[in-house]
Amino acid sequence: MLTTEDPLLLRSQDARGVVTLTLNRPQAFNALSEAMLAALRTELAAIARDDSVRVVVLAAAGRAFCAGHDLVEMRAQPSAEYYRALFNECGKVMMAIQKLPVPVVAKVQGVATAAGCQLVAMCDLAVAASSARFAVSGVNLGLFCSTPAVALSRNIGRKAAFEMLVTGEFISAEQALAKGLVNRVATPEALDEEVERVVASIVAKPRTAVALGKELFYRQLESGIEAAYTDAAQTMACNMMDEAALEGVQAFIDKRPPAWARKDPA
Amino acid sequence: MLTTEDPLLLRSQDARGVVTLTLNRPQAFNALSEAMLAALRTELAAIARDDSVRVVVLAAAGRAFCAGHDLVEMRAQPSAEYYRALFNECGKVMMAIQKLPVPVVAKVQGVATAAGCQLVAMCDLAVAASSARFAVSGVNLGLFCSTPAVALSRNIGRKAAFEMLVTGEFISAEQALAKGLVNRVATPEALDEEVERVVASIVAKPRTAVALGKELFYRQLESGIEAAYTDAAQTMACNMMDEAALEGVQAFIDKRPPAWARKDPA
Amino acid sequence: MLTTEDPLLLRSQDARGVVTLTLNRPQAFNALSEAMLAALRTELAAIARDDSVRVVVLAAAGRAFCAGHDLVEMRAQPSAEYYRALFNECGKVMMAIQKLPVPVVAKVQGVATAAGCQLVAMCDLAVAASSARFAVSGVNLGLFCSTPAVALSRNIGRKAAFEMLVTGEFISAEQALAKGLVNRVATPEALDEEVERVVASIVAKPRTAVALGKELFYRQLESGIEAAYTDAAQTMACNMMDEAALEGVQAFIDKRPPAWARKDPA
Repeated sequence: MLTTEDPLLLRSQDARGVVTLTLNRPQAFNALSEAMLAALRTELAAIARDDSVRVVVLAAAGRAFCAGHDLVEMRAQPSAEYYRALFNECGKVMMAIQKLPVPVVAKVQGVATAAGCQLVAMCDLAVAASSARFAVSGVNLGLFCSTPAVALSRNIGRKAAFEMLVTGEFISAEQALAKGLVNRVATPEALDEEVERVVASIVAKPRTAVALGKELFYRQLESGIEAAYTDAAQTMACNMMDEAALEGVQAFIDKRPPAWARKDPA
Repeated sequence: MLTTEDPLLLRSQDARGVVTLTLNRPQAFNALSEAMLAALRTELAAIARDDSVRVVVLAAAGRAFCAGHDLVEMRAQPSAEYYRALFNECGKVMMAIQKLPVPVVAKVQGVATAAGCQLVAMCDLAVAASSARFAVSGVNLGLFCSTPAVALSRNIGRKAAFEMLVTGEFISAEQALAKGLVNRVATPEALDEEVERVVASIVAKPRTAVALGKELFYRQLESGIEAAYTDAAQTMACNMMDEAALEGVQAFIDKRPPAWARKDPA
Repeated sequence: MLTTEDPLLLRSQDARGVVTLTLNRPQAFNALSEAMLAALRTELAAIARDDSVRVVVLAAAGRAFCAGHDLVEMRAQPSAEYYRALFNECGKVMMAIQKLPVPVVAKVQGVATAAGCQLVAMCDLAVAASSARFAVSGVNLGLFCSTPAVALSRNIGRKAAFEMLVTGEFISAEQALAKGLVNRVATPEALDEEVERVVASIVAKPRTAVALGKELFYRQLESGIEAAYTDAAQTMACNMMDEAALEGVQAFIDKRPPAWARKDPA
């Protein structure tokens, strides 16, 4: 696991299979440089192949969560070809989050702007400190946040998304909660605890059910409702034939806890 | 009307054409057994053919609204083929609600879980008692609520839907209202009254306008916006040529109530 | 600019490129007669070709914002062919708002019903007086608001939209804000000021970024997420190669304001 050593993106894993990835470039507000995007992509690819992982927490070091692209690096290479490749690479990292078989929880302790806000929108779940703030502020520099718009407009209503994109203004954590960009808000002191609550809930579920369900969730969103139902019925039948589901349902009938083999902490 | 006699699914109809279907298996929390699904399908098919019906209220007997599939029945037949057929049948019942030419109002007096929560999401409108609670809790047994996800994710935001699906946790009636899963919340004592308010509003409208409108509403949601407009313009032109609309608009111009022939209560 | 003279639709433009179009048929609650639709279409087409325009405010004279179609005119021509042409023409005007390269802000000072409510929904942004109210009330006359449904259901949740469409009931400005139909609510006295705040924010941004971004925003909403990302990456690369973006990003790096050529007021 070479990337564990990457100082840009810290990785830790506990005995339950909870991996924490920490954006660790605080002096640059955790900007998504090419190196940071590459580290994320490598790490997410490794997690995708690792059955011991149950959930990923995407956290950040320092005062900001993520300020989006690295503008110094970006400005140094003024070519359409370079920009297209960069934004495509960023899109692939974002999609890797959605394609991961385990849920990804954003732990947003500070400001999330532009592609940093997109990162929050692309995570399956997001828990924010009450002091966190969110903006898609590229338009302030003349660069409309087009790729963040893809994620943002799939999280919150059309008018709210357009307002954020065209004004570049910040919204508070409470506003992000009301609009649907984050799931929960906690005081900065209680942020770890609230994230742990979500994480503990997920690791208590069988891995197969969560993996099948997450994949189906995003897939069916892109279908008409009848095709979505056919797909979901097939997925759910497959899920029901899994040992853990057969045992879980039997245990429920028997009014006892399910006897699931788990990799529990020592 | 054979199904009126079905003890699983009570049916009553008033002089206005308001049909109340009551899930009547309270000892099993109104679980959707094969027999219950068949009763619903038969009843909905009969209503679809019956021009005297103006609105359906989907209610439930006992303390729970509906606990989803019948797990005892389901667990007894552990085959992928059986499960696929069961979930497909359930999906057809759900779609029959959406395809009905009259609106269906869920009257949610108690807990709605898994496919029971899906039932609420599929109804055109939902009024909940403040004591009602909602969950898609299959994941707690190792069975991700994939088919409920289809309905839920078309009612509420993506992050809120995923959170409910992966944690299996309950939300309150007030939270369901804020997220968009239900339209109105009333105290348990005022639930009947609030449902009656919605029902009375619907039966005061011409049947054709409501039928054309409901069908168009769901159809256009699945199109791009330009195709949706073309479809809606055609539908609305057709609606406008209906006797009731021509009279309604004329009456509005004349500042008088429309002279609509109605099947009023005696 | 012939249409400046059209008494039905007043036009003013300030030195910043802020165009205000004012529906000016207050005695008829600014109903969208054929002449009003034609005036809107002509004006929007002119604005689309005029690079000096930066933002459009859609306002209304009198107590109502807009009461929808002109029912007297409509009732006088009872033919399916006429109605189809009318609703198609109305849809084209609505789409012209979305296709405009500059943002359109609805300034809703009073009641917006039926196609008037649709107009609010189709604008990119909407600021409402706290006294404004919203309804899609055609169903009260036997004419389901099918074309308004297209816009409304793309602004607010499915259940809330269906409720408004089938009951025809009004919602308040505060409810419209909570549901996502409008962006901001101000007291009637502060309405101008709140609209100016939004407008000032938009004119401070480079025109190209906003134009590329607005077009991409609506286009990507109709794609699957992977296609949306490819499209957005291409758009953003193109945007980044624009002089204003290169300068804006450089200025940000240099910690100075961008030196953008602007058509500022004298």
